Amino acid sequence: MKPYKNMSEEELNVLKTELTKQYEDVKGKGLKLNMARGLPSAEQLDMEADFFNTLHPESDFYSEAGIDCRNYGELTGITEARKLMADMMEVSPDEVIVFGNSSLNIMYDTVCRSVVLGVCGSTPWCKLDKVKFLCPVPGYDRHFAITEQFGMEMINIPLHDDGPDMDMVEKYVNNDPAVKGIWCVPKYSNPSGITYSDEVVRRFANLKPAAEDFRIYWDNAYTIHHLYNGKEAELLEILEECKKAGNPDMVFKFCSTSKVTFPGSGIAALAASENNLAFVKKVITIQTIGHDKLNQLRHVRYFKNIDGMKAHMKKHAAIVRPKFELVIDVLKKELESLEIGTWTNPNGGYFISFNSLPGCAKRIVAMCKDAGVTLTGAGAAYPYKKDPEDSNIRIAPTYPSMEELAKALEVFVICVKLASVESLLGPEV
Amino acid sequence: MKPYKNMSEEELNVLKTELTKQYEDVKGKGLKLNMARGLPSAEQLDMEADFFNTLHPESDFYSEAGIDCRNYGELTGITEARKLMADMMEVSPDEVIVFGNSSLNIMYDTVCRSVVLGVCGSTPWCKLDKVKFLCPVPGYDRHFAITEQFGMEMINIPLHDDGPDMDMVEKYVNNDPAVKGIWCVPKYSNPSGITYSDEVVRRFANLKPAAEDFRIYWDNAYTIHHLYNGKEAELLEILEECKKAGNPDMVFKFCSTSKVTFPGSGIAALAASENNLAFVKKVITIQTIGHDKLNQLRHVRYFKNIDGMKAHMKKHAAIVRPKFELVIDVLKKELESLEIGTWTNPNGGYFISFNSLPGCAKRIVAMCKDAGVTLTGAGAAYPYKKDPEDSNIRIAPTYPSMEELAKALEVFVICVKLASVESLLGPEV
Repeated sequence: MKPYKNMSEEELNVLKTELTKQYEDVKGKGLKLNMARGLPSAEQLDMEADFFNTLHPESDFYSEAGIDCRNYGELTGITEARKLMADMMEVSPDEVIVFGNSSLNIMYDTVCRSVVLGVCGSTPWCKLDKVKFLCPVPGYDRHFAITEQFGMEMINIPLHDDGPDMDMVEKYVNNDPAVKGIWCVPKYSNPSGITYSDEVVRRFANLKPAAEDFRIYWDNAYTIHHLYNGKEAELLEILEECKKAGNPDMVFKFCSTSKVTFPGSGIAALAASENNLAFVKKVITIQTIGHDKLNQLRHVRYFKNIDGMKAHMKKHAAIVRPKFELVIDVLKKELESLEIGTWTNPNGGYFISFNSLPGCAKRIVAMCKDAGVTLTGAGAAYPYKKDPEDSNIRIAPTYPSMEELAKALEVFVICVKLASVESLLGPEV
Repeated sequence: MKPYKNMSEEELNVLKTELTKQYEDVKGKGLKLNMARGLPSAEQLDMEADFFNTLHPESDFYSEAGIDCRNYGELTGITEARKLMADMMEVSPDEVIVFGNSSLNIMYDTVCRSVVLGVCGSTPWCKLDKVKFLCPVPGYDRHFAITEQFGMEMINIPLHDDGPDMDMVEKYVNNDPAVKGIWCVPKYSNPSGITYSDEVVRRFANLKPAAEDFRIYWDNAYTIHHLYNGKEAELLEILEECKKAGNPDMVFKFCSTSKVTFPGSGIAALAASENNLAFVKKVITIQTIGHDKLNQLRHVRYFKNIDGMKAHMKKHAAIVRPKFELVIDVLKKELESLEIGTWTNPNGGYFISFNSLPGCAKRIVAMCKDAGVTLTGAGAAYPYKKDPEDSNIRIAPTYPSMEELAKALEVFVICVKLASVESLLGPEV
């Protein structure tokens, strides 16, 4: 089929009638499918059954250092959990604090702490007239929600195939002292799936911030979440690069096992320089007596070490990969020749980013919803939920079964086509 | 033996020589004992072994409402966990949010949220010149540490046998709009073990705060932590009393299973009015995707219901009670006739509060430490760690074994006597 843009109004009208019928047909099926969030599927979770064998009534509940994990203490995490998370984060255990079940919670608290208490002795942000955050787009909606809640001004930075537009990042960070942070998902980025190039990481490390309390918020959520053997993305380690560049304190790095073991019941960690961690420790020692050490112990005993964790991720990949391939296959087959959308084809992570014709994303998501297919809200990948082009849609293919996914894609493709035809035809007179 | 105060200088000097020798003897034993914090003992933790049977590879991981507890979701907690914690807190499940592993963390975040975002729409406290908190003393050091970290002014309120001095509380709360909160441990108070009387609770509920964003921070940490059957303290339910008094939004109530199952690996909850919870939910939905539902499920399946939990607490009491009785027996036998100290004799909770002669507490704690017995720092039960009388010492008898406890008490008693003699003799000339 030829590109829609080359069609005559008459051809488009014929197509519209046809697509409208198709849409009404799928709508009549009463589907209830969800591609909204990056959730592991039941099949992935079932694969983890042995996790529930790691601690049992006869277990030894003591850490390697002799700490009773059933009692209070060890604010920064038991030694072996710090080691495991350090290996996952490619840093040293001294640079790691293991927290509770959510890296999002760590990020929120890290920003909140800066608002109330400042960063390592700087003026608390709540005492400042204006705080700005840079937001590579499309990006992770929950990052933007944090900075929005604290009333910060968010500035869109285009995300290219190799990372954020670094000319723009440098311009803002190096000149404006109100710019206090940038949100990054540097590997298998949410939602586009791209990984920052070595050059981009080095340019990050070599920033010369106008604000002493500027930090890079480096959410390495998908660091070991590869889809293919032999096609693993390589990302330079940012703490190391910052040290080399003489900026050791410039980064907070976040990670969790939410998509390694269980969302909501994993363990999460923060990595940062000695200076940063000393300040964080001073604050969190008032916030809590410690995090869940039994869950840290479960994780360490389940995986043994980083190799065990990586081997485990291959099992996840085996379940997730066919879903990504199905999405890509369907989009290619159904949409490529029509030139009404582009999409990413990532080698890891949890998302595919789809770009429709400008002005169509909201309409597509709404039509899908009416036909029983829930997608992430259009615009969600942008600060204030405002996609200037109204074209970006995040596809999260992991949660549905293959069969459900195929059905959902059928609906999605019809909606993309119909919305595109409508858009090309323009408003009815 | 007669009261020290009735002894002559000569008698005291003889005693001092004798006690100094006793002290040097125990110091020589190289003890290493800890009565500093309210930790459950290994014996209590061992009793919980079956907890680690509640979830196993063949378990059903779905909540009663059909939620897969291994996946994201259920920000406010699974239904049955809300029910269990509601029963523990004597409120309705609608009034409860189940959080993570630490009620201290909930309290910290509740205060922090007010600092950054205000309380249900009020001016954020960080925008105010001054925020004051009332602190019944002696009280819980970690409460005071929170308000100290945020730079609030803390005001001591004497804690009587039936609760805080309510004349003073009313005077401050009803007249000073800078007073935004009061820290309370209303049942088996930390450290004195007293429980607020019905009249005190009703006076709390009937406060007429000058500040719309004044809240009572009601830390019901020891609600089911009785030591004796038939001597359980009764505490009026504060949410209900506040409702009756037309002040439904005036209280945040906190609770956890830290000393029911495992410190650091329990579940914690917040109870409050619909208004308060609506605001909290709006904020925390940005902070996290949800708390550890698998741990919620473990707790629910382990206890079945509140009766199971209460029955379980009797097993704890059987282990803890003899330790409290040993402390009381030793203090009575060794110190009562000397009139150099008073102490509380609680029917529940985790602490005994000891009051030495004025000006002796720091010295006693320091001497104990030198002899290998760690106590909570003197003054810890007061804001800014300043006990105006320097007389209060918190005794936490649960963690050591009976044998260790007996040894620690031997040291403690010698130190109390020696410090008292020194104090009565006055500084050497």
